[in-house]
Amino acid sequence: MTRTVAAQTVVVGAGPVGSLLALLLARRGHQVIVYESRPDPRRLPAPPGRSINLTLAERGWHALRAVDADAAVHEICVPLYGRMIHSPYGACAFQPYTSRHDAIYSASRTELTDLLLEMVRAHPAVRIHFDHRCLEPDFAGRRLHLLGPGGVTTTVAARHVFAADGAWSTVRRGLLRAHGGSFFQRLSPMLYRELRVPRSGLTGDLARREALHLWPRGQCMLVGFPNLDGSATVSVFMPLTGEESFAALTTPPELTRFLLSECPDLLAASPALVEDFFARPPSLLVSSSCRPWIHEDWLALVGDAAHALVPFLGQGLNAGFEDCTVLLECIEESGGDWHAALRRYEQDRTANCETVIQLAEQHYDELAVRARDPLFRVRKWLEDRAYRLDPDRFVPLYTMVAFSRRPYTEVRCRQARQEEMLDRLMKHPAIRAREVGGHVDALIRDELAQLAG
Amino acid sequence: MTRTVAAQTVVVGAGPVGSLLALLLARRGHQVIVYESRPDPRRLPAPPGRSINLTLAERGWHALRAVDADAAVHEICVPLYGRMIHSPYGACAFQPYTSRHDAIYSASRTELTDLLLEMVRAHPAVRIHFDHRCLEPDFAGRRLHLLGPGGVTTTVAARHVFAADGAWSTVRRGLLRAHGGSFFQRLSPMLYRELRVPRSGLTGDLARREALHLWPRGQCMLVGFPNLDGSATVSVFMPLTGEESFAALTTPPELTRFLLSECPDLLAASPALVEDFFARPPSLLVSSSCRPWIHEDWLALVGDAAHALVPFLGQGLNAGFEDCTVLLECIEESGGDWHAALRRYEQDRTANCETVIQLAEQHYDELAVRARDPLFRVRKWLEDRAYRLDPDRFVPLYTMVAFSRRPYTEVRCRQARQEEMLDRLMKHPAIRAREVGGHVDALIRDELAQLAG
Ligand SMILES: Cc1cc2nc3c(=O)[nH]c(=O)nc-3n(C[C@H](O)[C@H](O)[C@H](O)COP(=O)(O)OP(=O)(O)OC[C@H]3O[C@@H](n4cnc5c(N)ncnc54)[C@H](O)[C@@H]3O)c2cc1C
Ligand SMILES: Cc1cc2nc3c(=O)[nH]c(=O)nc-3n(C[C@H](O)[C@H](O)[C@H](O)COP(=O)(O)OP(=O)(O)OC[C@H]3O[C@@H](n4cnc5c(N)ncnc54)[C@H](O)[C@@H]3O)c2cc1C
Repeated sequence: MTRTVAAQTVVVGAGPVGSLLALLLARRGHQVIVYESRPDPRRLPAPPGRSINLTLAERGWHALRAVDADAAVHEICVPLYGRMIHSPYGACAFQPYTSRHDAIYSASRTELTDLLLEMVRAHPAVRIHFDHRCLEPDFAGRRLHLLGPGGVTTTVAARHVFAADGAWSTVRRGLLRAHGGSFFQRLSPMLYRELRVPRSGLTGDLARREALHLWPRGQCMLVGFPNLDGSATVSVFMPLTGEESFAALTTPPELTRFLLSECPDLLAASPALVEDFFARPPSLLVSSSCRPWIHEDWLALVGDAAHALVPFLGQGLNAGFEDCTVLLECIEESGGDWHAALRRYEQDRTANCETVIQLAEQHYDELAVRARDPLFRVRKWLEDRAYRLDPDRFVPLYTMVAFSRRPYTEVRCRQARQEEMLDRLMKHPAIRAREVGGHVDALIRDELAQLAG
Repeated sequence: MTRTVAAQTVVVGAGPVGSLLALLLARRGHQVIVYESRPDPRRLPAPPGRSINLTLAERGWHALRAVDADAAVHEICVPLYGRMIHSPYGACAFQPYTSRHDAIYSASRTELTDLLLEMVRAHPAVRIHFDHRCLEPDFAGRRLHLLGPGGVTTTVAARHVFAADGAWSTVRRGLLRAHGGSFFQRLSPMLYRELRVPRSGLTGDLARREALHLWPRGQCMLVGFPNLDGSATVSVFMPLTGEESFAALTTPPELTRFLLSECPDLLAASPALVEDFFARPPSLLVSSSCRPWIHEDWLALVGDAAHALVPFLGQGLNAGFEDCTVLLECIEESGGDWHAALRRYEQDRTANCETVIQLAEQHYDELAVRARDPLFRVRKWLEDRAYRLDPDRFVPLYTMVAFSRRPYTEVRCRQARQEEMLDRLMKHPAIRAREVGGHVDALIRDELAQLAG
């Protein structure tokens, strides 16, 4: 059975990015239809204990403000002002993100998605259809085919299509098949498993809810996010095979031994971790990107469909939300020339997103390896000092990424120059000797003067 | 919201094993309720191009016959009489499973599950509830809690519970938490991706529908299954990282180069493989088992919930179906003493399933590594010869596993003795010289005479 529908603007996928984009478009007067392959979440039992946490930063908030969702989203977030580094011996050190009290915001992915879905449902200009899977588009005919319940196919003649169908996008596959183009997909050697630590287990430094908790162990890493209800979600990142790996932990006693040696504080907080660890398979992480992102004036990719990032910089969704803001700006400024608008969007975003994909991959090293190094702490201190002395000239990488909306390409250029400056300073005898005071400030000021603005 | 239900027998999970067990129990006069966490498949769009193939062998058929499902299942199967080995240079060699024309049967997992579900729905003594997720059971209170749509919880006071909730079983987690017990879970270093080759691409040896197609490449392996509609499903098994791995294949040109050097016939059959390869993440494979499998006379695990196998021997589901037949025999023979019945079931199946888990892991080597070795072909020939000369004394491993219902523990014992016999024969000068004829038969007969029956 087949039915045909005419539609102005279609959004494929009602993840956070598809929902946000539908709201943005609707506010600018577009009639929007959203097709989502999953069933309506209100009709389903709650997902099995799985709570993936996200952190929202400035790029995300900027987009949420544009649809007046920021206040509601704020209600479901926990602000995090820095990282709490846990040593294997139980000692903890808190590193604030900035000296200006900047925070990123931790939320449950499901709660965030459900909240945006509610707003989509409530908007009179948007209609949403669940249980509809979009197939590879018919680019020549400018039609979408959607497979609905009971095998019914809906054909949609859409004026414009925005594909927010996630990292394993079907629309992207069709686009690549139609255009050739280029594409890469890098599977990360690191996989992850999510564990939940109940509120009752969180005592001492573990109970500090204003921090992202980090157990940096080189080959592997654990990251803890506080939840709204007082519990915490801990992500375990590890390779699949090798000495410290998911495949090497095959029984509860082996896992207990590992936790005892690497994060005894966590094991003490929740002995039930041991059964939970084995409850689900670990999940893969992927970086991916492609070109083109668009087809003429008809179709564009947004969010994970266009660029998947590993989560080590917490920017995947933030970058996806930024796609939406940039896309709407391009449409606004193009005065009705949609092809020009989509071309501008593609040009702006491809370079920026390919950059943040790399920055995210590199950041594993900062979190899991360098965070343990005392010299790295000196470097962090220098960074912070330089930022305080001249915040126009020097802004630490993470600050630019998380607390500004500076284009990622610009972030990387500045970062390269700043790293060279830090390399020079780290070689200086006074700093090697860890002298701190006016003398060091003078050295930093000298370097800052040489750094192009 | 909570509601409470009294029920005689509950089956958790409507995968193939849960459905088959519900039918078996209903035929013996039990009133059965099945709870399944997924939505009713009739209400969903077809799954995204993913067609996982299964092979059914004698243990599976035996169970299907017991519920008169064999004829209907036969209709959706393709019989496979042996392996077609594809060399990197395009040459192919067919190896029949036995000289007696035995076959295994390839089916789509979805079609098989849907067919059994239809039978379950049609049976007056079984009721099935979709969208109901079972939580960890309350063993003391002998109750199940099920989370339904809209957050409604149903509490069931069941007389007996059979948990067929798959390899990541929630009921098993609860059982282990309640009892301690022992448990292992080995993640395989090999992952897999499924590709579809259209009928039009299958020419020459690739079109031979009576064979399982095999591209044994040591570090990795491809396996092709013919489908009912004339297409084929190809599974690519590879490690995540390393030289030949999923992580090493990051772009379409890299993949094309790999396919050209390892299986040019397949690439020629379907250039679209390249886009499809990247369409979904690879999936993990796992072996797992636990003890206990039962709680008093109240609850037992069946199928993947009790024992997950890697697919290299094609026995996961066959073993799960065999659980059901054995379980029903134990219930039948216990004259109403359910605790005795479940204890017997556990005792019989734990040892057998732990054995087949190991046999399945070892079989990768036979398929992917040894299949390429000319000496191994001599060994296979000897095996076949011995089987023909005295089928009571000597039965090749795969024949015992796939074409008999001999307990797996017995299979392994016989196999050990048979391997020793083959080792001795392979050292014999006549066989090293690859002489074939009456002389070799006499040698084999001598050895057979020494092999305990
Ligand atoms: C472990 C982990 C941690 C992360 N942490 C962070 C973080 O801290 N900060 C951050 O910013 N980002 C983070 N991310 C990234 C973030 O989760 C993603 O960037 C974000 O979910 C992407 O949103 P999306 O809407 O583009 O895609 P998705 O969330 O994947 O949504 C896609 C939607 O499309 C639907 N769909 C798919 N195919 C079809 C089809 N054919 N037809 C119709 N519908 C379809 C899907 O069902 C889904 O609802 C993390 C990711 C992971 C894995
Ligand atoms: C790549 C691959 C190839 C394979 N090839 C073969 C082969 O050739 N031959 C063979 O015999 N076997 C094969 N197997 C193994 C086979 O697929 C499994 O053994 C079989 O699917 C197990 O059936 P099951 O019903 O026990 O579990 P599943 O098929 O996993 O079904 C479990 C069911 O329980 C439901 N469920 C889960 N949790 C809950 C809960 N909490 N509450 C309610 N319901 C729940 C699930 O939704 C699902 O429907 C293969 C497996 C793989 C991965």
